[in-house]
Amino acid sequence: MTSGNRLIIDDTNFFTEAVGDHGLEQSDLEALSPRLDGLRERLKGWRQGSEPTFFHLPFEPDHLQTVYEWGQRITAGFQRLVVLGMGGSSLGGEMLVQCLGGSEALSNVLFIDNVDPVGIEETLQGVAWDDTMVLAISKSGNTAETLAQLLTLLPHMERALGARVVRDHLLAITEDEDGALARVARSFQAPVLPHPPVGGRYSVLSPVGLLPAYAAGIDVEAVVAGAAHMAEKCLEADITTNPALRGGGAQYLLAEQGKSQTILMPYFERLNKVGSWFRQLWAESLGKLDAEGRHRGLTPARALGATDQHSQLQLYLQGPADKTFTLFIADEMVYCGDRIPARFKEVGAVASLAGHSLGELLAAEFMATRETLTRNGRPNRTIRMPALDGSVLGELIMLLEVETVVVAELLGVDPFDQPAVEESKVLTREYLAQMEGRINL
Amino acid sequence: MTSGNRLIIDDTNFFTEAVGDHGLEQSDLEALSPRLDGLRERLKGWRQGSEPTFFHLPFEPDHLQTVYEWGQRITAGFQRLVVLGMGGSSLGGEMLVQCLGGSEALSNVLFIDNVDPVGIEETLQGVAWDDTMVLAISKSGNTAETLAQLLTLLPHMERALGARVVRDHLLAITEDEDGALARVARSFQAPVLPHPPVGGRYSVLSPVGLLPAYAAGIDVEAVVAGAAHMAEKCLEADITTNPALRGGGAQYLLAEQGKSQTILMPYFERLNKVGSWFRQLWAESLGKLDAEGRHRGLTPARALGATDQHSQLQLYLQGPADKTFTLFIADEMVYCGDRIPARFKEVGAVASLAGHSLGELLAAEFMATRETLTRNGRPNRTIRMPALDGSVLGELIMLLEVETVVVAELLGVDPFDQPAVEESKVLTREYLAQMEGRINL
Repeated sequence: MTSGNRLIIDDTNFFTEAVGDHGLEQSDLEALSPRLDGLRERLKGWRQGSEPTFFHLPFEPDHLQTVYEWGQRITAGFQRLVVLGMGGSSLGGEMLVQCLGGSEALSNVLFIDNVDPVGIEETLQGVAWDDTMVLAISKSGNTAETLAQLLTLLPHMERALGARVVRDHLLAITEDEDGALARVARSFQAPVLPHPPVGGRYSVLSPVGLLPAYAAGIDVEAVVAGAAHMAEKCLEADITTNPALRGGGAQYLLAEQGKSQTILMPYFERLNKVGSWFRQLWAESLGKLDAEGRHRGLTPARALGATDQHSQLQLYLQGPADKTFTLFIADEMVYCGDRIPARFKEVGAVASLAGHSLGELLAAEFMATRETLTRNGRPNRTIRMPALDGSVLGELIMLLEVETVVVAELLGVDPFDQPAVEESKVLTREYLAQMEGRINL
Repeated sequence: MTSGNRLIIDDTNFFTEAVGDHGLEQSDLEALSPRLDGLRERLKGWRQGSEPTFFHLPFEPDHLQTVYEWGQRITAGFQRLVVLGMGGSSLGGEMLVQCLGGSEALSNVLFIDNVDPVGIEETLQGVAWDDTMVLAISKSGNTAETLAQLLTLLPHMERALGARVVRDHLLAITEDEDGALARVARSFQAPVLPHPPVGGRYSVLSPVGLLPAYAAGIDVEAVVAGAAHMAEKCLEADITTNPALRGGGAQYLLAEQGKSQTILMPYFERLNKVGSWFRQLWAESLGKLDAEGRHRGLTPARALGATDQHSQLQLYLQGPADKTFTLFIADEMVYCGDRIPARFKEVGAVASLAGHSLGELLAAEFMATRETLTRNGRPNRTIRMPALDGSVLGELIMLLEVETVVVAELLGVDPFDQPAVEESKVLTREYLAQMEGRINL
C-alpha cells in the first residue's frame, strides 16, 4: 500500500552554520525541549484515543469503511461529484484531489467553496445533474454559505431529476443531526453521514477529505497509512529526531526572532493546494489571544516556484528579514517535460538551456532559489517528496498538523478553537436581515 | 467609451476615529506631505513624457494603434491566443482577461507563466495549433523560462503546421532586438514588436497587457481612458484629495506603525487576479535596500472573500496587529445569483438566508468583515467598483501603480529596479550546466 518512499526533510538552512545570525543554534532547539513535555504526554494519550483528535484519525478503520462504502456507490452511479463546503470542509479534499488526482479527476470532482454567483455558475457549466452526486459538508450543520450553496442548487436538481430522485443525488456530512443541513437533507430522505468530532481544518483524514479523494480515484488507504507512519514518528521523545517537535520548535524560535511569516513555496503546480490547506490550518490554529491577552500568531503565505521568482523573490531576498521558507519539491518533476531542442543553442541566452528538459530547468530554479535565500541569510527548509503518492502526502499532512499543534503549545494558544469569527457570522445575518431593496455598500 | 462610473475609495477605517490607536490622524497625513514634493514634480514631468514611465503610457496613442492592428489580425485569423511570459509579461494581461473577459475569453486566451511540465501540458490540452497564435513576451529578450516555453512548443507547432507556416502563428514582444527571443522569432520570419521602455510590472497599459485583453474581446480604449483619468487626479497637489498620495501615504504611515503586511481581499472571484498582479508590483518595487542599506519593503498577500473568512479571518482579527486591508467590491456582485428559496425558512439557520440572493449574501459577508475588522482595530479601506468595466479597472491599475511609487519614495527605495534577483538567474544557469544524468536535489 505504501510506496516505500518517505518524506525527506532538510532543515540545514534553518541553522546558523548556513544562514548566520538569522538562524538557530542546535542548542536553542534542545533548550526548548522541556516546554514540550506536556504536549508529548498529550500526544501519547491522543494516540490511544483518550479524546477525539486529528492524531487518532488514521487509526480509526471505520473512516475507511465509510469511504469505501459510499465511494463505491458514488463511482458506480455517477460521473461527477460536486462538493459543497467552506474552509476545512473543502480544502483537505481539494488538496488531495489536486495533488494526486490528475486532470481527469479535477474535472470530475468539483468543489464549491464560496458564494460568488459568477464563480459557482462557471464551476457548474456543463454539469448534467442526472449523473452528478452532490456532497454537502458542514461540521456545525449551520454554515450559512454551505446552506446557501445547497439551497440554490436544489431547485436546479429538482427540475432536472424530479423531487423524489434528488435523495439519490445528495449526501450530507455533519456533526449535528438537528442542524439545518441534516434537516434539509432528511426532508429529501437523503443520507446524512457523521462528521468526526474534530475541527474542519483537522478533518482531512476522515470522510470529509477522503471521500472526495476516493471519488477521484485516489488510493486513500495509502494516504492514511502514510499519516499513521508519520504520527508514530511524532511520538518520539527526542526533539532533534521527532520531525514535528523539531520543525514546529524551529519555526517557533525563528518567529520569536522576528520571522513570523511562513512562506510555503512548492516547485510543482500539483502541490499548490497544499499551501491553501496549510494556510487555513496555520492561521486559524495559531492566530489568537494567549492567556495573557497578547495577540499571537504566525502568518502563512503561499508562493509558487518558479513563477514567484519573478514576483516575490526580490522582496524575499532584500526586504525585511521577517520570513521563513518551506520549499516543496517532488522528484518526479525533474523527470518529465519536453527537452529544449539543441538547434538554437548558438543563440545567446539559449545556450545554457538547450538539451535540458523543462523539469530540469524547474529543478535548477529551485536549487538556485534555495541557495540564494541561504546566501542572503533567509532561513529555509526543503521538504522533498521522493514520490508524489498517497503515502508521502499522508506523511506531509500529519507532519504539518502536528507542527501546528507544537507551535500553538509554545505560543500558549489553543490550536483547536476559532473564537474570533463568530462576531462576523452574527453580523452577516444582521446585514442580510436589513437588506430591503437597494443595498448600501 | 468610459462608463461614467468612477472608482470609489473609502479609507475612513484607516483613521483613529474608526480603529482607535491602530489608526492614523489626519494630521499625520498632512505632515507627510512635504516629503512628497520631489515626487510631485517628477509626476508632472512624467505626465509630459520627460522620461519613459508607466505614468505616460495612457497618453501614448501608438500603443492602442499597435493593439488594434495586431489584435484584429489575431481575432480575424485565430480561435485562440497562447501568451508565454513570466511575471510582469503575463500578470497584467491575466488580470485584464480574468476581470473583464468572461468565461469564453478565459478558455480562448491562455497564459503560460511557469515551466512546470504538468501545468503546461494541462493548459495546452485541446489546443489545435492551426487556429492558435502564440505571443511570447520578454522585456530583456533573454528570460530563461519564456525561452524554454517557446522552444519546447515550437517542435509541436512545426509538426502541426510545417516550419514555414510557424511564422504566421508566432508574435514576439521584446525590448532587445538582438536578444534571444527576437533572434528565435526572426529565424522563423515571425514579427517582433517593441516592448515599451518600462519594467514588466509597469507594462500592463502597453501592448504587453492590452493585446491579450483585446484578443479576449475587452474594450481596451476604456481601460486606457480610465487610467488616464486617474493619472490626472494623481497630479493634484493636495495629499488629502490626491488619491495616490493619500493612499500611498496612509499605507506608509501604517507600515511605520508596524503594519507592514498589505492584504488585498476582493469579494468577487473575477477580481482575484488583481491580487496576483498587485502582489508582484508591491513586492518587487518596495522590497529592497534603501540608501543606508536597511532592508525595506511591505509584504503583499492575496485573500478572497467570502472563502477566506473561513481560513484567515481568525488570524486577521486576533493575531498580531501587523496588517492593513484593502477590500474590493463590485456593485454588480450584489445583483446576480439565484435566490435562496423560501421553502426551508422554518429550518433554523436557513431563516435569515431565505429569499436573499447569493450576491446579497456575499455583500452581507463583506459588510460584516469590514465592520468586524474595524471593531477589532484593524485598519482597512474599501475600493468599490460601481461597474466592473474597463474604465473603472483602468483607474484602479493607475491608482495602485502610483501608490506604489509614493510608498517607494517614502521608504527611500527605487521602485523601478529589482537588483536582488540576478544572482538566482545566474545560479540557475550554473546548476543546469552541472546537470548530467542523475540530479542531486
